[in-house]
Amino acid sequence: MKTLSENVAFGGMQGVYSHTSDACNCEMTFAVYLPPAAKEGPVPVLWYLSGLTCTHENAMVKTGAQAWAAKAGIALVFPDTSPRGEGVADDEAFDLGQGAGFYVDATQKPWAPHFSMWSYIREELPKLVFRNFNLNEQAQGITGHSMGGHGALTLALNHPEQYISASAFAPICNPTGSDWGRNQLSAYLGPDEATWARHDASLLMAQHGFHSPVLIDQGAADQFLGLLKPEKLAGAMATRRQPGSFRMQPGYDHSYFFVASFMEDHIRHHAEILHAI
Amino acid sequence: MKTLSENVAFGGMQGVYSHTSDACNCEMTFAVYLPPAAKEGPVPVLWYLSGLTCTHENAMVKTGAQAWAAKAGIALVFPDTSPRGEGVADDEAFDLGQGAGFYVDATQKPWAPHFSMWSYIREELPKLVFRNFNLNEQAQGITGHSMGGHGALTLALNHPEQYISASAFAPICNPTGSDWGRNQLSAYLGPDEATWARHDASLLMAQHGFHSPVLIDQGAADQFLGLLKPEKLAGAMATRRQPGSFRMQPGYDHSYFFVASFMEDHIRHHAEILHAI
Repeated sequence: MKTLSENVAFGGMQGVYSHTSDACNCEMTFAVYLPPAAKEGPVPVLWYLSGLTCTHENAMVKTGAQAWAAKAGIALVFPDTSPRGEGVADDEAFDLGQGAGFYVDATQKPWAPHFSMWSYIREELPKLVFRNFNLNEQAQGITGHSMGGHGALTLALNHPEQYISASAFAPICNPTGSDWGRNQLSAYLGPDEATWARHDASLLMAQHGFHSPVLIDQGAADQFLGLLKPEKLAGAMATRRQPGSFRMQPGYDHSYFFVASFMEDHIRHHAEILHAI
Repeated sequence: MKTLSENVAFGGMQGVYSHTSDACNCEMTFAVYLPPAAKEGPVPVLWYLSGLTCTHENAMVKTGAQAWAAKAGIALVFPDTSPRGEGVADDEAFDLGQGAGFYVDATQKPWAPHFSMWSYIREELPKLVFRNFNLNEQAQGITGHSMGGHGALTLALNHPEQYISASAFAPICNPTGSDWGRNQLSAYLGPDEATWARHDASLLMAQHGFHSPVLIDQGAADQFLGLLKPEKLAGAMATRRQPGSFRMQPGYDHSYFFVASFMEDHIRHHAEILHAI
């Protein structure tokens, strides 16, 4: 693991690191924020998965999350959104290939050799960060924005034994029924839609729900509502009697200003659950 | 005035606008954050001046200021740091010319036709924003980072009738005695150092102080301490018995993580003074 930068922030440390990933078969960059409490002992960790076109950096600099993580005494990890580099497959579309890993393990050409973001986020990167930082491996929560909200919810719903808390900002809720999903799942996983189902938060929520309250924020003026399909997830949560809140926020769009506006609530949501275990 | 973007943030509105500036003789871009309270009536306004290489955007997206401004019920204005464009003089150095206006009115070639950031920030842009937004013109505060801290303090110290409150993050404290200052003041104002003195916060502080408490934050691990010369301002403040605080913050560097870490304190500082008038 290489240290690319470290800056003191809110009494803790915001670092950016890189390492050679086996899952993605390339060099990957990620960011970790350690709150001041990590100097005293292991702290819970919140995974923040970013959206299309983003790297580890966008949320690290634009969401103000460190302020709240410092107060709540939890760490943040900001992974990249895909493998990257010259030898890595890509597409001209902004929503396929580099910057658009969709948090799946690709099985199809040309994506399969590198695009294993599911395994990377769930297995490889946790091992690395738990070895190198003062984190409580038993207290993991996960959240994300847009494509990252999709990743956060599908990881949590498939692996409730790993993720104690879950939330999302304007997630892609129903990728098997959206152009933000069908195009990518078919490219990465192939035409058999049976393999797509475990990557659809609304289908998973309808099937088995989640073991702790789920917090979802969605902007009512989001320019991508037709692709995100929040009504599918809200419907599934209500039908399932899922504890938690689906909040439609009037006036807010899809930007980081929206994410930043509700970051305090999300970090408090995770901190309450993670500190209680 | 043209609207380039508007995003709801923390219940208020983060906008980016452009206009044709007479002072700078070019198109200028700036950002305004209106807190929710601005829907009810005029609110105080805090000017935030940015540092070398920055535009209106850096602080707008990286400091988390909107969260605190919304709570405090004050507006924020983020101006650009210089005139820009094809017809505008520039220099290969990052600390002279475009992105480095140094908040003075240039009198020398080739800078004089455009580089009038002093008049732009103090006169032209206030007229524009007070005409277009629900702001209390009698309640202006000013702050900034690095070169912008220099601009904030020198504007406040020269015009206490206009600025009710003042603070700075890692300001260039003594430009007449630093390579961050001597190079630029000589380029923009010419060799007569008598014309430089009103652009040096430490000299001004030593002469006449400021009428309300001044808050300064400086990182002890700042990589530019030798250029910023905080000891000059801290000494002048103490000698003058200037009410306020000069805080040396251990571990912090010159980055926006430092600024973000203390933004809440600065906004509260200004809000207390501005709401009391």
